[in-house]
Amino acid sequence: MTRTLLPALLLAAATPALAQQSIATLPPPVLADPKAAALRDDALENDHYAWDITEGLTTEVGQRLAATGAEARARDWGVRRLKAMGFANVRVEPFTMPVWTRGAESAEIVSPFPQKLAIAALGYSGSTGPAGVTGEIIYFDSVDALRAAPDSAVRGKIVFIDHHMMPSQDGSDYGQFGAPRRQGPTVASKKGAIGIVIRSIGTDHHRNPHTGVQYFTDGATPIPAGALAIPDAEQLVRVLKRGRPVVMHLTLVSQKTEGGQSGNVIAEVPGRDPRAPILLVGGHLDSWDQGTGAIDDASGVAIVTAAAKHIMDAGRPQRTIRVVWFGAEEPGGLGGKAYAEAHGKEPHAIAAESDFGADRIWRFSSQLSKTDPASYAQLAASLAPLGITKNDKGEADGTDVEPTIAAGAPWISLGQDGSRYFDVHHTPDDTLDKIDPAQLRQNVAAWTTMLALLSGGIEPGAKQPKRR
Amino acid sequence: MTRTLLPALLLAAATPALAQQSIATLPPPVLADPKAAALRDDALENDHYAWDITEGLTTEVGQRLAATGAEARARDWGVRRLKAMGFANVRVEPFTMPVWTRGAESAEIVSPFPQKLAIAALGYSGSTGPAGVTGEIIYFDSVDALRAAPDSAVRGKIVFIDHHMMPSQDGSDYGQFGAPRRQGPTVASKKGAIGIVIRSIGTDHHRNPHTGVQYFTDGATPIPAGALAIPDAEQLVRVLKRGRPVVMHLTLVSQKTEGGQSGNVIAEVPGRDPRAPILLVGGHLDSWDQGTGAIDDASGVAIVTAAAKHIMDAGRPQRTIRVVWFGAEEPGGLGGKAYAEAHGKEPHAIAAESDFGADRIWRFSSQLSKTDPASYAQLAASLAPLGITKNDKGEADGTDVEPTIAAGAPWISLGQDGSRYFDVHHTPDDTLDKIDPAQLRQNVAAWTTMLALLSGGIEPGAKQPKRR
Repeated sequence: MTRTLLPALLLAAATPALAQQSIATLPPPVLADPKAAALRDDALENDHYAWDITEGLTTEVGQRLAATGAEARARDWGVRRLKAMGFANVRVEPFTMPVWTRGAESAEIVSPFPQKLAIAALGYSGSTGPAGVTGEIIYFDSVDALRAAPDSAVRGKIVFIDHHMMPSQDGSDYGQFGAPRRQGPTVASKKGAIGIVIRSIGTDHHRNPHTGVQYFTDGATPIPAGALAIPDAEQLVRVLKRGRPVVMHLTLVSQKTEGGQSGNVIAEVPGRDPRAPILLVGGHLDSWDQGTGAIDDASGVAIVTAAAKHIMDAGRPQRTIRVVWFGAEEPGGLGGKAYAEAHGKEPHAIAAESDFGADRIWRFSSQLSKTDPASYAQLAASLAPLGITKNDKGEADGTDVEPTIAAGAPWISLGQDGSRYFDVHHTPDDTLDKIDPAQLRQNVAAWTTMLALLSGGIEPGAKQPKRR
Repeated sequence: MTRTLLPALLLAAATPALAQQSIATLPPPVLADPKAAALRDDALENDHYAWDITEGLTTEVGQRLAATGAEARARDWGVRRLKAMGFANVRVEPFTMPVWTRGAESAEIVSPFPQKLAIAALGYSGSTGPAGVTGEIIYFDSVDALRAAPDSAVRGKIVFIDHHMMPSQDGSDYGQFGAPRRQGPTVASKKGAIGIVIRSIGTDHHRNPHTGVQYFTDGATPIPAGALAIPDAEQLVRVLKRGRPVVMHLTLVSQKTEGGQSGNVIAEVPGRDPRAPILLVGGHLDSWDQGTGAIDDASGVAIVTAAAKHIMDAGRPQRTIRVVWFGAEEPGGLGGKAYAEAHGKEPHAIAAESDFGADRIWRFSSQLSKTDPASYAQLAASLAPLGITKNDKGEADGTDVEPTIAAGAPWISLGQDGSRYFDVHHTPDDTLDKIDPAQLRQNVAAWTTMLALLSGGIEPGAKQPKRR
């Protein structure tokens, strides 16, 4: 044993998964499926369907707040586009829901240093009315710190919850650091606060607040709840650090009415075998109201639709591919629940959604790793040329397909790189210019590969003319 | 002559300035001044004055729109801070001016695709009143294209001027691409337009419009004039490309009143020789109203003040150093004009300002290259260790010191890297988080070096205690 070898051997001992394996003990080789690979490479180079849908939806409709006229225009747009692309059984499956809309909103430090801060109401925020409310700020660095505070310290005040979310590739910190938005308003209300402002759940430094949904639970009375843009939250921290009482005037006007209408837009590539369990792929059509919902989630519906179209262009799959543009995901996944109620008992071979932006897919995971290892290995081999690694420990996620997965559908997750995602998520900055066409095509290539491999085989049919 | 030598010789012939020079013909060596170098290196490593001023002014005052109460609070803040730092002759020199303030503002595409666009009024915009105006958009890709259009094509419409400004290190394209803002409103008004919107003069892709000043000249009637955020201008272009008439509803409420008050805040490091021409350094105290004016121009006043303080900490210069925090630069350099009226005939050894952000200085230029080559060479040698090159072809610029230079003061320009400057210039995004403390210190080091070299010599005096 020489000194130069020792560190390498220690490293190998410490990280056995990365240690060099004898080629004699490697599992049998798995090669990419040639037909899927050809479709993959064509999509990677030539796809324009996804860009066209994303550009069209964000330009010709713009924002698509759930259960509003804008979302209805988006459904009409989707039906027209999906029919024009040659999909079958294009229809809207409507459902009703409450409508929450935003009005005037502002936050102003009254003292000690008068100045305006950039703010946006959170979904289902209570309304201050046009006169607003005024109160002293009380600072917490987490929801738990707020929960631990005596009610008497919070009563009559405006709660401010800070946090320190950093970018992560898989978005895994959104769970923990999203708590100020999801739980903060209810906890603050139960303690008698007259309002709550949080540091936006985001990773950028622009004056664009990140909105997002929250619900008042446990019988909490709705109070005004808003997110400060991150530079403004940092400004408020600096002002608080001067040690003098900080008084804020907060105006968050909003309206909630019952009986709004949303719906899922559904389209199909009919399979040769109508009895074979179907492939369900989707994204959500609605968006928050301040950007044009480009990465959240026009790109998602565009990616899965483009992939299904590539299969349609290639011939007839054995399994039916069902594309769903879910309605009303942002206010709590209502479209996904409506779909599962209507279709959850139909046999699904797979349920998958694209709803994490438009940057490249970097890894995938699926319960096929346990239930169908051969297909999983084939997927891994066919996706690897796109730079996509497999994640054997992945778990099902995705608001829209979760209820269908809960009803028994197997899941697959094509995981996008989220490093930039929370820079623009739920902000006015979610616009078309944030989308990189090359990365968008890589997404389409991956989804096309997956659909080709799980389609049960594509037979050349009366080939459809390519239509935009 | 070998083949490999030929290209090198051709290159040398084509670009003689870069050709290798014989060491026998090099000019005599110039070494950095040791005392200036020591002050430079101390500032580079340890300066906190500039950060403290920038952080304090942006946190404790925030935006400082010219001739408003906010700018008055900033003057009070400045006087307190400059006195606390030990400067002499701290005073405000007031002047009067009209006050322009912004009210409600919105832009909405009414048809064919209803949606809101992000907009900000330009300085001295006409007001639509709360009801707004509605008109068809007419597109131009430059001011010249607008000028060439027949009045009949423009009359009754809302002009939209596009452009394609890219980032540049020296900001030199701001002249050409700023024309839509500076000249567009007047030209549009003269042709009978009912309003004008421009693509923001900027280089980012955020939903933050770039405001800035414009004047209606040549007897033009004020019309509403606003800047669309860049993603919104691009969206409008996409909508226009569909080929259908585009109708916009534009609301830009603003107010202009006479008799407002602004002022210059002035402080000095008194020189040993009261008759020696002084060193004038400055930045501007006012800012636009949407951000906190961190890079425009809290950092500028902070940099020059910090440098003067480093000289003060080192002893007594021969020449007086006069620090000016100019008022009302943004609406047209009113503070600079007021200073030149009051002081332009006093002898100045140099006039210099910092007003191009807070990123590192990359080159300098000065008329000393012609009038005092020895000092210029000494400056070049002493600034080079900061990565600062000399620009023999530079010209005087700087809104605040221009009138004083026009009155006869020699100029020097320490040029900052503007590659990022027009991402946030005149937007809500001009906030403290955009400032890199290390680059800010490099600025202070360069200004300290310059002041030390041109001070006429610093004699150790009753050394002042360092005060924040």
